[in-house]
Amino acid sequence: MEVKAGEFLKQINYPSDLRKFKEEDLERICSELRQFIVDTVSVNGGHFGSSLGVVELTVALHYALNTPYDQLVWDVGHQAYGHKILTGRRASFHTNRIYKGLSGFPKRSESEYDTFGVGHSSTSISAALGMAVASNYKGEKDRQHVAVIGDGAMTGGMAFEALNHAGIENSNILVILNDNCMSIDPNVGALKEYLTDITTSKSYNRFRDDISHVLSKISELGPNAHEVVKKIEKSIKGGLLKKSNFFEALKFRYFGPIDGHDVKHLAKVLNDLKNIPGPKLLHCVTVKGKGYSLAEKDQTKWHSPGLFDKITGEIQKTLTDKPAAPKYQDVFGHTLVELAEKNSKIMGITPAMPSGSSLNIMMKAMPDRAFDVGIAEQHAVTFSAGLATRGMVPFCNIYSTFMQRAYDQVIHDVAIQKLNVVFCLDRAGFAGSDGPTHHGAYDLAYMRCIPNMVVSAPMNEEELRNLMFTAQQENMGPFSIRYPRGNGVMPEWRRPLKAIEVGKSRTICEGEDIAILTIGHIGNEAVKACTELNTEGIHPAHYDMRFVKPIDEELLHMVFKKYKYVVTVEDGCLQGGMGTAVLEFMADNNYSSTVVRLGIPDQVIEHGEQPELWAECGYDALGIVKTVNKFAVSRATKTIAS
Amino acid sequence: MEVKAGEFLKQINYPSDLRKFKEEDLERICSELRQFIVDTVSVNGGHFGSSLGVVELTVALHYALNTPYDQLVWDVGHQAYGHKILTGRRASFHTNRIYKGLSGFPKRSESEYDTFGVGHSSTSISAALGMAVASNYKGEKDRQHVAVIGDGAMTGGMAFEALNHAGIENSNILVILNDNCMSIDPNVGALKEYLTDITTSKSYNRFRDDISHVLSKISELGPNAHEVVKKIEKSIKGGLLKKSNFFEALKFRYFGPIDGHDVKHLAKVLNDLKNIPGPKLLHCVTVKGKGYSLAEKDQTKWHSPGLFDKITGEIQKTLTDKPAAPKYQDVFGHTLVELAEKNSKIMGITPAMPSGSSLNIMMKAMPDRAFDVGIAEQHAVTFSAGLATRGMVPFCNIYSTFMQRAYDQVIHDVAIQKLNVVFCLDRAGFAGSDGPTHHGAYDLAYMRCIPNMVVSAPMNEEELRNLMFTAQQENMGPFSIRYPRGNGVMPEWRRPLKAIEVGKSRTICEGEDIAILTIGHIGNEAVKACTELNTEGIHPAHYDMRFVKPIDEELLHMVFKKYKYVVTVEDGCLQGGMGTAVLEFMADNNYSSTVVRLGIPDQVIEHGEQPELWAECGYDALGIVKTVNKFAVSRATKTIAS
Repeated sequence: MEVKAGEFLKQINYPSDLRKFKEEDLERICSELRQFIVDTVSVNGGHFGSSLGVVELTVALHYALNTPYDQLVWDVGHQAYGHKILTGRRASFHTNRIYKGLSGFPKRSESEYDTFGVGHSSTSISAALGMAVASNYKGEKDRQHVAVIGDGAMTGGMAFEALNHAGIENSNILVILNDNCMSIDPNVGALKEYLTDITTSKSYNRFRDDISHVLSKISELGPNAHEVVKKIEKSIKGGLLKKSNFFEALKFRYFGPIDGHDVKHLAKVLNDLKNIPGPKLLHCVTVKGKGYSLAEKDQTKWHSPGLFDKITGEIQKTLTDKPAAPKYQDVFGHTLVELAEKNSKIMGITPAMPSGSSLNIMMKAMPDRAFDVGIAEQHAVTFSAGLATRGMVPFCNIYSTFMQRAYDQVIHDVAIQKLNVVFCLDRAGFAGSDGPTHHGAYDLAYMRCIPNMVVSAPMNEEELRNLMFTAQQENMGPFSIRYPRGNGVMPEWRRPLKAIEVGKSRTICEGEDIAILTIGHIGNEAVKACTELNTEGIHPAHYDMRFVKPIDEELLHMVFKKYKYVVTVEDGCLQGGMGTAVLEFMADNNYSSTVVRLGIPDQVIEHGEQPELWAECGYDALGIVKTVNKFAVSRATKTIAS
Repeated sequence: MEVKAGEFLKQINYPSDLRKFKEEDLERICSELRQFIVDTVSVNGGHFGSSLGVVELTVALHYALNTPYDQLVWDVGHQAYGHKILTGRRASFHTNRIYKGLSGFPKRSESEYDTFGVGHSSTSISAALGMAVASNYKGEKDRQHVAVIGDGAMTGGMAFEALNHAGIENSNILVILNDNCMSIDPNVGALKEYLTDITTSKSYNRFRDDISHVLSKISELGPNAHEVVKKIEKSIKGGLLKKSNFFEALKFRYFGPIDGHDVKHLAKVLNDLKNIPGPKLLHCVTVKGKGYSLAEKDQTKWHSPGLFDKITGEIQKTLTDKPAAPKYQDVFGHTLVELAEKNSKIMGITPAMPSGSSLNIMMKAMPDRAFDVGIAEQHAVTFSAGLATRGMVPFCNIYSTFMQRAYDQVIHDVAIQKLNVVFCLDRAGFAGSDGPTHHGAYDLAYMRCIPNMVVSAPMNEEELRNLMFTAQQENMGPFSIRYPRGNGVMPEWRRPLKAIEVGKSRTICEGEDIAILTIGHIGNEAVKACTELNTEGIHPAHYDMRFVKPIDEELLHMVFKKYKYVVTVEDGCLQGGMGTAVLEFMADNNYSSTVVRLGIPDQVIEHGEQPELWAECGYDALGIVKTVNKFAVSRATKTIAS
């Protein structure tokens, strides 16, 4: 029977529908699913290569397992688009990552098939083990618990912590190692080399060479020698080589490596593994971007390419009339090289985000001074601390949301010892369409309570450059600089570098009665707000605080003496952030102005474009105007009354 | 020549003195060093077993290496007493862990031999690698970089992250695996079993058995067969077995296992290893408590035994007249079992602190429901999250200072998903003699900014029990309870359990003009302060907030309406803590009382007994009295003036 394009997929609303198909239909279903992903992502955007790489694995898992009774956890979740499409969300998949639409990651509130919300790397084995132990305790012996984790995510320390625990728990857990040699950028580290080694059987080959001269002597012993040599080899391969496998050392039963694109074989293996109790690891070799040749060839570019023409592969560029301001990331990358050319102590460190952070610019220009340490935020920070003890000035670039992973190391290894490490917190504030797991909402609060830490944020590209210049000077101690994802506001950003006095704010405009205090890029919304307010005859002052810690006390004394109304604006949580620092100063110094703090309220804010989320939380230009207008009304009322 | 007891050690002020001795004197030096540690710790207290276990390693390292030019990093640092004694601090060692005395851990500001400050586990490889990379960059090819790390610390994820990176850096780093099968409690996990395996050569033996029947066939082949079999075995042992070693898989050259108590052999091996470039791991097998038989026999008890009679081994007990109030830890441990007996959903989780947290009570009573997951805070939290998704109510007990390690997991895996995990933050507030690396100073600030999180602290044992009872009820979501190290205040603490309304404070006493708001155990200092103030005719109100989040808004409205002066008291940092939450409420609701916040100032506070540190920071009873008195004076002055 001839079937039309997409016809099989249309019949699959849930995995139970998938399971009605015959094994020989699976390849066709994979092909349709792959096409559906290409069709949707090309016009909607989103993560691309990861999901294409696991199409067969996704189909095989839902075919072989009894989801959602069986528990399936996707590590990170970039790769879960196929999973979403097969589990009740095909029709709504076009809203993926759009404001009020589907989340770009598995999410418990979205579907019972999403057993665990993800976004950050390396959590899946811990979560699946928790589920498996609970099932054990409840006596649900038949329930399967599967964690799908990439070789990149496997470098994150907590994955190892989980393996170490899982290896001694007699629980029914299957870890599927999705080995594609990639994180967003190419995966790095010794484990990756080891995996390549066993995939290509180099170890075994090397061993065979090593002892071949010994074995060869057997041939001198008699006519049956060849057979004996073969038997010994077989025994070694099946026995020792397997037992001393990295994962077997951690008491997992290791299976593989197998081809992650042979869906029928995958389904069969997964089915077989259901009957093997205890901790198991299945090593699947896949190709990121599989089936879309451009994505296979440039995997980093096609991790999340934006909109593209699915036929030509041309990636759509955002068009603007005026020359676009650069991304903060690129200002960081180029400025770091510029600084490092003059200061031989500077080094650059990223945990697996060379392209995302633009540290790749330095990695290319100065390969001996820039390090991608893998998905390993904790190590990145303490490695930086080690460099600093020997007189280096490391710039450790970690997204605000991922710095949560290294919080202890920031306190314990850097701040307490007052080491000169510069933390560049990328993606601070709302991350946008990646949503709540990725919002950089908490860093101002969690950094501000750490002794010895400078906490700063630039309002524009020039300020970022100058803060970086300031931070790399002698004996600055721990110094953090946060900036958002995306573009700044200065097309002509390559201005001469100059030092900023630590703790010194910047006056954007003086004004009357009302002072607006802002920190970071969001200050540009306040500039727009002031322009609007001026047309209404309202003239607030606007100060760019630059530093949340140490805070500009001289400015604040002036502000509280001169202004009755103070509005603070930050792209960060209201509990403990910049506005709170202003309140602490006010209380400690016995002032009593009316202070309204604008920022992220105490709730989980979902995904959307940054301006959409700023508006939702009331601190875009319009929100600031509204807040100031309330004061103006209250002031006018008082004036009339008096 | 006959030498007197301690005579060699007296000649050693620095490692350069040690290096003047002959190899054959090293055993004697070890013996004197061991005795010195016993003599001092028995009368001063401190960590005991760890340092005894590495006496030979310590002497060998300083003998073979050129410290401080060569960089030596001790992981955790419990074991560094011998190191301190040999590096200029023998004479001051009696001040170890005493207020204003030596730190109990290596500390950069204390000695140039302390290359890296430690306290938390698993940081040493990252730090040493940073140092090694810096040396590489500077062209200092001869400089050695050594990390000494226990098998317990090796289970911490960041150690694995560091190994993964170090394996591909061509840097001169030596990791010494101090394998004693212990953390503070016995080490757990798959890696530990693997290490035992290779130490006892089980793998190799098992393999040899497996293929023996194949090899045996060779004997049928001719008269020289025995020799050939031997050669094959040798080749396998030297080749494949080594190559497929866990650490060799991570591209480290593996040496060992060797006897960590043979000082001469150790010194020789360390000397040899200096000439081997690249990443190396030396596996040393040691006995915790070595040389003090009681400590060897009960290693957990003798990890940090307190004062003891060095001859009889009798551990001194604190004597008090009245029946002592219990430790908060024991109240936690017994109450958890009491709750778990009634609520079958409850489980207990500790990352390697069964005895420290008293979770060992539940581990003994309900072994299938209480888990020691190893030094793995990140995994502990996400494992708990996984349990919670399947309807369990995990009590995840982590010291406040170590919760910093799992900050991301608390946000990303628990809070965003609003899972019912109960976090018991032990050692909150000042930790005491462990000092700044261990103070639980920041948790109120870093937990308060997390959405969906309940942040609470009991003022006494009954409150701890009731908060635990409250937290285990249905659908409570993420719930944190912090309490300090040490004893509570209620000898009769086993009172009936009852639920507390979440966000509801408790009135200790009503009063006039001045309100004291406290959170947690430190409230008992306010009780003392009020008693003293009452004798002076001053009658402040005292409210135990119980919850920092949600905060008791009804109470605060009343307080700001009724009281001109408000004093907040917390055993935590002033930036972003409970006092700050009060300020936020005040600003958001347009109140303007005078608020003075007492707590830990924005600096690194060193070690000392808790009361010493509370006094230093001005929030013990006396400090509270002084603060209130200032108000009283200001009020009196105003009364006279009016």
